[in-house]
Amino acid sequence: MRILVLGGDGYCGWATALYLSRRGHEIAIVDNFARRRWDEELGVQTLTPIRPLSERLQIWRELAGRAIAQHIGDVTDYAFLSSVIRGFEPDAAIHFAEQRSAPYSMIDREHAVFTQVNNVTGTLNLLFALRELRPGCHLVKLGTMGEYGTPNIDIEEGYIAIEHNGRRDVLPFPKQPGSFYHLSKVHDSHNIMFACKIWGLRATDLNQGVVYGAATEETAMHEGLINRFDYDEVFGTVLNRFCAQAALGHPLTVYGRGGQTRGFLDLRDTVRCIEIAVENPAAAGECRVFNQFTEQFSVLQLAGMVQAAARKLGMEVEITHLPDPRVEAEEHYYNAKHSRLLDLGLQPHALSDSLLDSLMNTAMEYRERVDTAAIMPRVEWRSGTNRRGRAAGATVMANR
Amino acid sequence: MRILVLGGDGYCGWATALYLSRRGHEIAIVDNFARRRWDEELGVQTLTPIRPLSERLQIWRELAGRAIAQHIGDVTDYAFLSSVIRGFEPDAAIHFAEQRSAPYSMIDREHAVFTQVNNVTGTLNLLFALRELRPGCHLVKLGTMGEYGTPNIDIEEGYIAIEHNGRRDVLPFPKQPGSFYHLSKVHDSHNIMFACKIWGLRATDLNQGVVYGAATEETAMHEGLINRFDYDEVFGTVLNRFCAQAALGHPLTVYGRGGQTRGFLDLRDTVRCIEIAVENPAAAGECRVFNQFTEQFSVLQLAGMVQAAARKLGMEVEITHLPDPRVEAEEHYYNAKHSRLLDLGLQPHALSDSLLDSLMNTAMEYRERVDTAAIMPRVEWRSGTNRRGRAAGATVMANR
Repeated sequence: MRILVLGGDGYCGWATALYLSRRGHEIAIVDNFARRRWDEELGVQTLTPIRPLSERLQIWRELAGRAIAQHIGDVTDYAFLSSVIRGFEPDAAIHFAEQRSAPYSMIDREHAVFTQVNNVTGTLNLLFALRELRPGCHLVKLGTMGEYGTPNIDIEEGYIAIEHNGRRDVLPFPKQPGSFYHLSKVHDSHNIMFACKIWGLRATDLNQGVVYGAATEETAMHEGLINRFDYDEVFGTVLNRFCAQAALGHPLTVYGRGGQTRGFLDLRDTVRCIEIAVENPAAAGECRVFNQFTEQFSVLQLAGMVQAAARKLGMEVEITHLPDPRVEAEEHYYNAKHSRLLDLGLQPHALSDSLLDSLMNTAMEYRERVDTAAIMPRVEWRSGTNRRGRAAGATVMANR
Repeated sequence: MRILVLGGDGYCGWATALYLSRRGHEIAIVDNFARRRWDEELGVQTLTPIRPLSERLQIWRELAGRAIAQHIGDVTDYAFLSSVIRGFEPDAAIHFAEQRSAPYSMIDREHAVFTQVNNVTGTLNLLFALRELRPGCHLVKLGTMGEYGTPNIDIEEGYIAIEHNGRRDVLPFPKQPGSFYHLSKVHDSHNIMFACKIWGLRATDLNQGVVYGAATEETAMHEGLINRFDYDEVFGTVLNRFCAQAALGHPLTVYGRGGQTRGFLDLRDTVRCIEIAVENPAAAGECRVFNQFTEQFSVLQLAGMVQAAARKLGMEVEITHLPDPRVEAEEHYYNAKHSRLLDLGLQPHALSDSLLDSLMNTAMEYRERVDTAAIMPRVEWRSGTNRRGRAAGATVMANR
């Protein structure tokens, strides 16, 4: 299949591009390197030293004997995006090319507006480009489980049957997103649903949980293929961040009581879920939603697991509770369905001791690269303007 | 009260500004005249000749003895908007300042992106400005009944209690908007709900039905205060458009079967609803939703009523059914609740023969200004690129 990976230089996108390339698909990556520039803006870097994209692709070509094309540009630039779609003629377009950090979107007004305009415009452009040039192409869009928030009822996969005053309908599941970033994904979901309805496009909206893990089989094949591993307060997801903290002997920073429960999945399951979606495309006119995670954990549970893994390496790590910088329930009901990908063949990697050991080892290996000043939360949801340390006064690194 | 009317030069905004000014409130208008420029872009004009804003305000000052301030600029320009909020210190901010036409948003990619970026950015800016400068100010935001779409269950006011698998929660009512414009209002609603939650802002989201009518008591006081009256396919709402068609002896153009049922209200009720919202502000942290309409009609019912009103004036007008340019159900269940404004004292103007007579008379009076070429629908939802006659090749009239 001809598969376009938008945002293919990022954490999930890079792993996905290699995985699908190895399985024989023809892959082209679209990226504008915005993710690398946000590191520069914030004065942080991935724990693992990543190579320039062209070098990564060169190594992959030599190692796997497979070429991956790269198209460097911005999905908010329609002339660029449409020329790529016209030239590559994708059968599937996997859309990772968005600003994906909740804290980044909460820094200030400028970052909030940037996140929503960037993400909404990019997705609208992609919808119009597919409508115009490639209407049969399957859009696989990365959404987030954070779109749902934490309702006091079971979370279904995208839609819910509601009985009300003696009548019944199946309606989009109500959304209660918890940051301007999460809101941007909700906006996207509504736009995609509408485009499928009016134009007959086919889409799969993957409401992904929090991804953990450093490597896939492919990224582990060569040091030059290494994936990014973020541990900072803005882009670091919680489990990776805890591992980096443990490797340094830094206390694990639990926000609030730590009863915040979310869906999680291994990066190796992310790439497999994408493959499953691509191999089982949505029907024309269908906007299908899969909840893409494998296990639920509370933040405090995860901290305990990392503490135990560290202890096996002879390290005693504390768990500290910080005032929650976010506005969220610190204890709540959470039961989210996630059977559709399992029904299509996903065999999950459960979060195991060995994965935690390997994450800890990665963190230990690169511990001299950790900047502890980047770990403590400095972006407060309740504030309209956050100064981000070295980034104070810095403006959004625009995409172009 | 000190009340800021954003978009105060438009159809609802102008009537609201005068109404509240006459009742003793101190009013300031913010407008960038985008609405007037969209007429120029599309090559159409309001049926009623409207004066420049400064002239309108001069007449109002002389007639009513009350000054209304004007601030000319764009709400997407934060420096401008925040300087207005800082200087005027509003107790309530009524936000009409958005692109409000569904067909305009469906012209092509450029108009879709413009509508969403413009509306979402303006509302985000307003939320941040209130957070920073005037957190106690009550935001009264114009949404639309079109956010809900046409679900097969009763439509509640913003939120719905859902029982699911033995558990219960009150959640945002699921949204199924029918155009990129309607989607922009859904995006706004989610953003506002979140801002109230994290910052304790107070907001009333008015999901307004389709407004009809040409005049309020205030706009009728002087010819120079006349309100705009749009009849074209892009900005003309259905009842006003039917009256203009009838005045010309033009067939009433019903899209599809005409069973599309919506909530409607008289412009005189719009201004009173706004007053009720302002006088009964939301609590700090509350995002309250009122469904702002008074009666439900199907499009075919309205056509029949206009046909009858025309007959009284001795005119025989046909009703024609055109293929529906929109993607929408042409027959459907529709029962939307709208008790909250009634509970707070709204006494609705029902759509009466006399109102229809007066609308017909307005249309007759200015019939020589009608451009029949502007009436027939040329924006097709199913097309990704619509050429708008004289506007072909024209680009969005940017706000700045």
